[in-house]
Amino acid sequence: MLGNFSYCNPTKLYFGDDSLRYLDAELPRYGKNVVLIYGGGSIKTNGIYDQVIKFLNKNDKNVAEISGVMPNPTLDKLYEGMEIARGHQADFLLAVGGGSVCDYAKALSVSVNCKEDPWEKYYLRFEEPECETLPVGCVLTMAGTGSEMNAGAVITNTKTKLKIGHVFASESVMPRFSILNPKYTLTLPHYQMISGIYDIFNHICEQYFSGEDDNTSDYISEGLMRSVICASRIANKDPRNYEARSNLMWAATWALNTLVSRGKSTDWMVHMLGQSVGAYTNATHGMTLSAVSLPYYRFILPYGMQKFKKFAINVWDVDPAGKTDKQIAEEGLSAMESWMNELGLVMSLTELGATEDMLEGIAGGTLIMPGGYKVLDHNDVMKILKESL
Amino acid sequence: MLGNFSYCNPTKLYFGDDSLRYLDAELPRYGKNVVLIYGGGSIKTNGIYDQVIKFLNKNDKNVAEISGVMPNPTLDKLYEGMEIARGHQADFLLAVGGGSVCDYAKALSVSVNCKEDPWEKYYLRFEEPECETLPVGCVLTMAGTGSEMNAGAVITNTKTKLKIGHVFASESVMPRFSILNPKYTLTLPHYQMISGIYDIFNHICEQYFSGEDDNTSDYISEGLMRSVICASRIANKDPRNYEARSNLMWAATWALNTLVSRGKSTDWMVHMLGQSVGAYTNATHGMTLSAVSLPYYRFILPYGMQKFKKFAINVWDVDPAGKTDKQIAEEGLSAMESWMNELGLVMSLTELGATEDMLEGIAGGTLIMPGGYKVLDHNDVMKILKESL
Repeated sequence: MLGNFSYCNPTKLYFGDDSLRYLDAELPRYGKNVVLIYGGGSIKTNGIYDQVIKFLNKNDKNVAEISGVMPNPTLDKLYEGMEIARGHQADFLLAVGGGSVCDYAKALSVSVNCKEDPWEKYYLRFEEPECETLPVGCVLTMAGTGSEMNAGAVITNTKTKLKIGHVFASESVMPRFSILNPKYTLTLPHYQMISGIYDIFNHICEQYFSGEDDNTSDYISEGLMRSVICASRIANKDPRNYEARSNLMWAATWALNTLVSRGKSTDWMVHMLGQSVGAYTNATHGMTLSAVSLPYYRFILPYGMQKFKKFAINVWDVDPAGKTDKQIAEEGLSAMESWMNELGLVMSLTELGATEDMLEGIAGGTLIMPGGYKVLDHNDVMKILKESL
Repeated sequence: MLGNFSYCNPTKLYFGDDSLRYLDAELPRYGKNVVLIYGGGSIKTNGIYDQVIKFLNKNDKNVAEISGVMPNPTLDKLYEGMEIARGHQADFLLAVGGGSVCDYAKALSVSVNCKEDPWEKYYLRFEEPECETLPVGCVLTMAGTGSEMNAGAVITNTKTKLKIGHVFASESVMPRFSILNPKYTLTLPHYQMISGIYDIFNHICEQYFSGEDDNTSDYISEGLMRSVICASRIANKDPRNYEARSNLMWAATWALNTLVSRGKSTDWMVHMLGQSVGAYTNATHGMTLSAVSLPYYRFILPYGMQKFKKFAINVWDVDPAGKTDKQIAEEGLSAMESWMNELGLVMSLTELGATEDMLEGIAGGTLIMPGGYKVLDHNDVMKILKESL
């Protein structure tokens, strides 16, 4: 059954190959002092930076910049951004980039006016902001994290080697608007593309693999997973296929904007494992997930047999005739493994530079989430990590 | 491919068996003068009215009432409500009922401060409101129309026998909040329940049966349809099954809150036919849809073969082995027909009191929508209506 919940997601989305022009409609709604946030500078070579600056100038904004936001945004980078935004008396934060840049902008939004240390408050004590938050807008250049339509922000503390995500409860942390132009994703390197694809798929899995009943959220998830599988196969062969990339971008948004988790428990252990791996290896997020997924799902399969069976039949079209539940469920995971290999995903921690002596540390940094089919203990985590090497 | 679009749906939803208590959190956000809108009075016998009044009194509101909103709200009833709301200097409209009551509240919201005749402006010229709209909140007592999370409002002009829906573009017409308590739907008469179920299912069909490609919206639709089929079979045998009713209520909201139509064309001809039937017979909305659906879908099947084939395989689990596309597609519609019979839906216009001599009038009142697999002409409409008798 669907448990009790509330749902509200007011982010306005502009989707399509001409969507950047809506910046011109949105910018007048916000104050004069804008902080433009971006990553490694690819937006300067592909022309997006110039177009964004043109709209900012046209709307007579005072612009400060935070550049060099890294794939796993660090706490030190957050402190640096707080200085810049405070110095600029920022009214509005404009993130141009992938999920890391959007996450960073949201973390900054709740930190600029915060009287306490944001790491302590938001990432260790998981508190909500009491201060005024700054409005955030996003121009998305990569599909994957869903950060463009949710209130989550992952930050990595490099000193303590902890990568922690906080999904804020307040809608005020969600981007006010996000511009989704699939064309921007066409030129992404193949490794980034498939990493993003697996991130999308795994977001859905994390919310799907929990609970036993036939609820609407899980049916929506099955549809989204089928869409990701179909579009990923096209994009993998033909990365410049706009149709496939637009479907992936849209599926990414709905995979993690709170819809498919409504009314049910969720798992998130693959992300917890992957985030700890990321803190040790600085590997690309989606690849940390792909490396640990199959060992994890094979470990929990006996505890969630009926859902894994449903996954096999409804998502992977496994024919159940004449097979035991276990055979059907395992065949589903084998089909998923074939698809992951077909895409070229990283299938082991070794490929990401992790070594056996790191595993105790990675296990120690893995937060245990209680929503899945089995609540893991330290030994379980070690077993899964060893299996993932 | 997904065409260009924008998406914004800020309605806040409170879902669950304890959700009415959130009225207490929402009411303080709005002004003192509230118009309470409801239908035939069943909310007085089942106790919902008393609970709502308690929250209104607790929040010190001045309450005026509009009762007797009928299943197909009429233009005359709208005029009557405009008088009441103006006389009361309404700040806020609270709809307690099914889709008709919610629709009526939204129509009233755009009409109270309108300087022109709302029928002319909104239903004949399809214009957007320029006046200030009144905020609307909904307490939903029946699942089906999706009216609780969209900007649509259907009004029937009994003089001209035209039943017309307008989906407003402005988010300000959407309910500010909606309270969805599946318990309220448990005691609905069976006829109303199955009528609502078919309304949900057909909303998805209307958006699904158009376009040819593998887009994410259609995959989400397939998931929603499977959910409706599964939950409807449980609810049909056991109407007091909370699990099934909660899944139906949630599916209903997402079937028509603009999500599954993003980036694609949509059809809506079953609704156009059904609405015209409704204006002639005053039959229950969902039953006007079920009566014309199969003749319509069988008529357009040759023009949308690939989608009907996909519908058969992905929604109805039709085994395609050794069959032609046409056989597969037709088998899908036969499976749908069996399910409709199983639920006990009305399968002919005759059962609704329509007679052959009405058909020319019904055909004349049917708006032709251009988004489906074939743009119908008058002869096509007559053929489908005759087939539906």
